[in-house]
Formats: sequence, C-alpha cells, structure tokens
Amino acid sequence: MIKTGGDTVSIYEDVKKEIDALQTEIIDYAKKLIKFPTKSGNEILAQRYVKEVLEDLDFDYIDMWEPDINELKKHEAFVSSRDSFINSPNVVGVLKGTGNGKSLILNSHIDIVSEGDLNEWSYSPFEGTVVNNKIIGRGVSDMKGVNSAIFGVLKAFKKLGVKLKGDLIFQSVIEEETGGAGSLACALRGYKADAAIIPEPVGFKICPAQQGVLYFKINIPGQSFHGGKRYLGVSAIEKAYKVLLAIESLEKHRCEIYASPLYKDVPIPFTINVGTINGGVWPSTVPDLVAIEGRMGVAPGEKLDNGKKMLENWISEAADKDSWLKNNRPEVQWLKNFLGSACIENDHEIVKTAQKAYKRHFNKDAELGGTPFGTDARSLTEFSNTPTIVFGPGSVAHCPDEYLEIDVLMDYTKVLAEIILDWNEYEKH
Amino acid sequence: MIKTGGDTVSIYEDVKKEIDALQTEIIDYAKKLIKFPTKSGNEILAQRYVKEVLEDLDFDYIDMWEPDINELKKHEAFVSSRDSFINSPNVVGVLKGTGNGKSLILNSHIDIVSEGDLNEWSYSPFEGTVVNNKIIGRGVSDMKGVNSAIFGVLKAFKKLGVKLKGDLIFQSVIEEETGGAGSLACALRGYKADAAIIPEPVGFKICPAQQGVLYFKINIPGQSFHGGKRYLGVSAIEKAYKVLLAIESLEKHRCEIYASPLYKDVPIPFTINVGTINGGVWPSTVPDLVAIEGRMGVAPGEKLDNGKKMLENWISEAADKDSWLKNNRPEVQWLKNFLGSACIENDHEIVKTAQKAYKRHFNKDAELGGTPFGTDARSLTEFSNTPTIVFGPGSVAHCPDEYLEIDVLMDYTKVLAEIILDWNEYEKH
Repeated sequence: MIKTGGDTVSIYEDVKKEIDALQTEIIDYAKKLIKFPTKSGNEILAQRYVKEVLEDLDFDYIDMWEPDINELKKHEAFVSSRDSFINSPNVVGVLKGTGNGKSLILNSHIDIVSEGDLNEWSYSPFEGTVVNNKIIGRGVSDMKGVNSAIFGVLKAFKKLGVKLKGDLIFQSVIEEETGGAGSLACALRGYKADAAIIPEPVGFKICPAQQGVLYFKINIPGQSFHGGKRYLGVSAIEKAYKVLLAIESLEKHRCEIYASPLYKDVPIPFTINVGTINGGVWPSTVPDLVAIEGRMGVAPGEKLDNGKKMLENWISEAADKDSWLKNNRPEVQWLKNFLGSACIENDHEIVKTAQKAYKRHFNKDAELGGTPFGTDARSLTEFSNTPTIVFGPGSVAHCPDEYLEIDVLMDYTKVLAEIILDWNEYEKH
Repeated sequence: MIKTGGDTVSIYEDVKKEIDALQTEIIDYAKKLIKFPTKSGNEILAQRYVKEVLEDLDFDYIDMWEPDINELKKHEAFVSSRDSFINSPNVVGVLKGTGNGKSLILNSHIDIVSEGDLNEWSYSPFEGTVVNNKIIGRGVSDMKGVNSAIFGVLKAFKKLGVKLKGDLIFQSVIEEETGGAGSLACALRGYKADAAIIPEPVGFKICPAQQGVLYFKINIPGQSFHGGKRYLGVSAIEKAYKVLLAIESLEKHRCEIYASPLYKDVPIPFTINVGTINGGVWPSTVPDLVAIEGRMGVAPGEKLDNGKKMLENWISEAADKDSWLKNNRPEVQWLKNFLGSACIENDHEIVKTAQKAYKRHFNKDAELGGTPFGTDARSLTEFSNTPTIVFGPGSVAHCPDEYLEIDVLMDYTKVLAEIILDWNEYEKH
C-alpha cells in the first residue's frame, strides 16, 4: 500500500492512475516505433531507439548483439533465408529484481511484415496516425503497440518508485515474421526466466498453447496433349482437385484428433490452407503439371515430423485410389519456412496469474485459448526452458490499415502491470 | 489413256509410277522446307523457295504479296497479335487449265508452331532427318510434307505431259497457327474455286466439317485472410472448382446437342480444355483470385457468338447456385485468338471425288470425319465461297519429334493426284 493524498488505495489503483497519466507518452512510444519501417534487414534504427528507452527506464543490463547465423544454422529449429544478421541486432534488457521474486521474460518482435499495396491503405503505414481512438500503422498490433505498453508499465513503476523483486527481462527480437531466428538466438545466448509472455495480438485471450506451422508444396503430374483431343491427355488440374479433396479431409481428421477445449469456439482449429495454385502453359494444351502451395497448422505439442508424415501419408493414400496418380505420384515438398508448436499446462502459475489480473481489471473471466498462428513460443518454452503464454491485445494484423485501439492498448498496459506486480512481486519506496 | 511400253494402262497408274520415280525429289522438297524455321514473322525465305518451285512447275501466274494488316483489321474474322505482315508474304500460284474443267484450291500454311524444348527432340527440328521410313522435323506433318506431295503431283503431271482442264490454285499462306490472317488475305484478294482441299494432318480422314475454336479466361474471386483462420476468408481455389465442374457439364451438354455421325468415334468431339490455372500469392494466405484459361471447340456450322453466349450463361447459372459466387461473379473474358468453324454437305461433289480416289487407291472406303481442331477452312468456304474439305496425311503435330512416314506421304501424293485428275480433269499430250 502506498500513501496517496491521505487515502490508502491498492498499488494496482496507483499504478493504473499513473498509466492513465502517461497515456500521451505511451501513444508516443507506439508512434515512434511505427515510424521505423522494420522489415527484415531494416531493424537497426528501431533497436537503437529501444535501447535508448531501456536506458531511460534504468535497465541494469542491456545486451544488443547481432546473432551469429553460423551458430544458429546448427540448430534444428533454425529458419531464415538471410545470409547474415549483421546490422540486425537483437536487444535484451534486464531489470534486476531486489531478490526473492519470480523472473519474467516479455518477448516482442521488432520486425514487421511488408505494408503490401500502399493504395489499399487509408493512411501512411509508417506514420502512426491516430484516428477515431485508433493508432494506425504497420506493426502497431503486431507488435509495436505492446512495446509501448511495456514501456508505459515500467515508466509508471519508475515514477511511483515500485521496485520488482524478480528480474524482468525484455526481449526485442528480430526475424519473428521470417522464421524466428531472433528468439532462437536469445535462447542460445542463455536467457531464461520462471515464465514468459509473448504479447502477440490474440485479443486478450490467454494462450498456454501455440500452434506451429509447416509450409508445403505439392507437384501433381498430368500428361499434355492438344486440347482438341484432351481425352488423350490427363489434366493435372483435374488431378490437383483430388489432392485438394484429400487435404480437406486431412484437415477435418486433424481437427478431430487434436480437438481441445482451448479451441472449442474455433471453426477449424488446425487449418490447412492451400494458398497458391499454378499449372499449365497454354489454354489449348492439357496441363501436365500443377503445383499447389500451402500452410499447415501444427497442433500445440505436436512434433513437426508428425505433421509432415501425416500429410505425406494422406496424399499417398489418396494417390493409391486414383488410376493415374497411382503410377504418377504427387510429390510433397517441405518448404524451408516452418515454426514448431509449443504449450504448457492450462493451470500453470503464469496462466493463473494472468487470469487473476485479467479478472481484477475487467471484472470477468479471461478466455483461455490457443493461437491460430505460429509464434516464437517454442524458443522460450522448449529451448529456453521458460514456460510461455501468448497474451496480447488486438487482432488485426498483416493487412492494410492495421490498427490498435487506444482504449485496448491502455487496458492491456494496466493488466500487464498487474501481472508483473503479482508475478515478480514488488517493494514499495 | 497413255501409251506406255506398248501396253494400255490407266493414267492413274502412269502418274503413280512417275510419283514413285520422284520419291527422292519429293522427300527433298520436304527436307528443304523443314530447314526454314518458319515461325510467325520468319516466313520470307521459305516463301521465296516456294515461289521458285512454282516457277519450275510452270505455274502461269504467281502472286507473292504482303497482306495489308489495316485492310484485314476491318474484317470480323481477323485475328493477329502482329503489327504488320511486312516481310511475311503469302504466295499463290495459278496453273491455268485448258478449259471446261472444275477449279481447285490447294491451301497449305507455311508457318509452324515453336519447336519448344530442344531437349525433348531426338533430332534437330530443322534438319528433316530421315530415320526408319520417317521424315522428322517441325512442321513436316503440319504441313510441309503435303507441300512436297503437291509439288510431286505437279512434277509428275509435267513429266507426263498431263494438262489439267480446270485451274489449279496453290496457296502457301502465313499465320494459320496464329489466327488465320494469311488465308483470310487470300479470300479478300478474291481467290476462289469450285472446291478446296486443306491437307491438314487428319490421318486420311475426309473432313467436310471443321471445328472452330474460342479461347477464354475466367477470373474467379475469393476473399483473402490469414491461412490460420482460413474460415474467415473465401478460397478462390475452392470456388474455381465449381467453375471447372460447370465447364465439364457444359462440354457434355455441347457434345450431346451437336452430336454428329462425323464424330461418332470421338470420345469428346467438342472439347473444352482448361489449360492453365493460376491463383493465390502466398501459401499462408487464403487466395482471393484464381484465373483459368481454356480453349473451347466450336461445332462445325456453329456461330462463334453462340459458343460464347453458351459458356457465359452456363458459368452465370453455376454462379447463381453458389452463395459466394452469386454476389462475387466469375468474369468470363474472350481472348483475342479465335477461329470460326465451317462445313459443307457430307455428299458434296468434292467429298465424293475424294472418297472415290481414296477407295481406288486403298481399295477400302475412306472414313468421313470432322476436324478436332480449328483450320483455315472458314476463310475458304465462307469468305471465298469455295466449298472446302480437310484431307491430309499424318496426325502427329505440335510435339517433339514431329514426323511423317514416307510411305504415308507417298500414298497421299498418289491419292491427291487422282483427286486432281478426277476433279479438274485433264488432257493427254
């Protein structure tokens, strides 16, 4: 309890009041981060800014380093199409606790996906325009807004003289959108804690389970012939639809065998999305090759190899049933991009701590869930030995006019502050 | 009857014997023509050679001219992606008859399709290699071999002193493979006759009916979304399948309503071939657009507009039955390439003349049929007022190792000679 104006109020209320007072500053953090167009390879200016903020917030130890791609390449989970990470540093700050508290990692990626077609944006993707209670910009929801929330929490703590007992480790990582090399590098560098939160935009769901993803390509053969006698050829387009039907039935099967209460309201928890199809060379020639590319959700806890084998077998069995494909096999290739799944127990302490903070703030129960997308969670849970939840605000990402509502950002800042106070514990000054 | 070695034999036998004696020369004509790689825009050297041969064969009138593209553009049937036909002349030769005979046009195109991937050829496509009784090369079957047959017939007539009563008009045209502008230019220049033969490779079938072709593109819309929540998007690949099924059912319908004894042994007389499919941008994004391109056979005698309307309506009706496509209509576009169909009566005099000659030579009935592909026949039948059949040897075209068997070429040369003798009639010298 802290004395404020003569009344005794809980520290939560004091911190929240302080966070409200910092609203302009929190929005300003977000705007500044959005102005750095941090697509893969272009992170350094933003990371320097993050480092400055951590210095201003009195972090005890700040580690800014360029991950060594040759070291990373030795790891089974390494994915990247880059040649090096020179000029693409990670930044990790450690706020040392006073002792006897649990430690917490907050992991956020600084990289963003491309802004895409500028004509589809109503505002600049790299300005951080505020309109109708929304901050607009590429990465505001995924996930620069939560950086400003974290900064806001720590600024409020600093102003109020709140000292945490357990260490707080903030990781601003590169390459989440392109394979997760940044968080993997943090794991290999030895960072770990009693728990971690990744504030990816899952709309305030508390997610102890995180999907992985596999990317595949399937080549389906046909036999070309002049279109006027197409019955003397075999259309690879027709055969591709046999493969597509097999994929659809596999998706159904996987959703059944991996059914989980965490995904109870999700129509298709573990999607297999066929994203591209390309085949044939000429309108009047029977197409002799169709290639499809897709993305397969890996169930939390499922091994990547299990997912791969399942798709390969399913396609193979479908081919066996077709007189042409039986002897002209579709070829399944695994693309270089993938991300392992992860999960912790639904009643892990960090889950309960988040639930409690959520309920205290919103006066209702938080929803538990699993992510519909891949995250960096595996690098923390599995490779850093740090049980991790995904829990963040917003849900609109990877699209034009990406936004985060200011009210939502402020709510998240406050709930996060409460989680940290409860998890790390604190001393009053 | 001509006196030969004291015996009286039919002129047919004399001509055939002479043709046999000319075999080396006939093969040599074919080899020389194959050596000119006469892809669209590259015809002039071959046409100069054709002109020389016609001069050698004592043609009375030889017309070599570059079609005027601006004149042609005014015609409804004009198709070409070229800007001009400068350096791409047609050659037409007229062998004046002595009078009181029927006139005949022999129409053959000098242009060829691309040789494609050279690695798929066992021999050079532009050498005219002779192996195992076959002449191999791009265009030998489609249709340089028949030029040498025509030259062989006329050389035999010249040697034997056979004078035709009716005019014989030989047309060596450009652009058959790319829209038919060459034959259209002959029509507009006023060439016509009592009948015409186009010796396209239909394996000795006598074809009074010739299909047309239409080329189409259909854009099928979807709605993009992150593949992890693909149920919030609409897959254009799934919707494209509905369109493909509609096309399949239309093909079946058209084969029923245009059923003809001429196509009685053809599994799918009027094919609709979907030759290409392309859609989507990224494996993990729900595809928001798929484009398919295809070729639709137009039934002999069917108007092009009728075929177009039928496909448009069929796709539209399929869209009406789908909750998404109903409000997000597939868009049918007609590509610039097309070729009208044509036909004459099955018992036309030129058909009967060809049947008689075939039977006399092979001692069996010729098969009547319709072409499975588009030809220049409409420019003759409809725009030159010249009833036309397609009747030629061989059937392997547009593929690597295109060939024509020498025996087949020699048989064709002889049958063609008999047709001309019967149709044009002759005087002995």
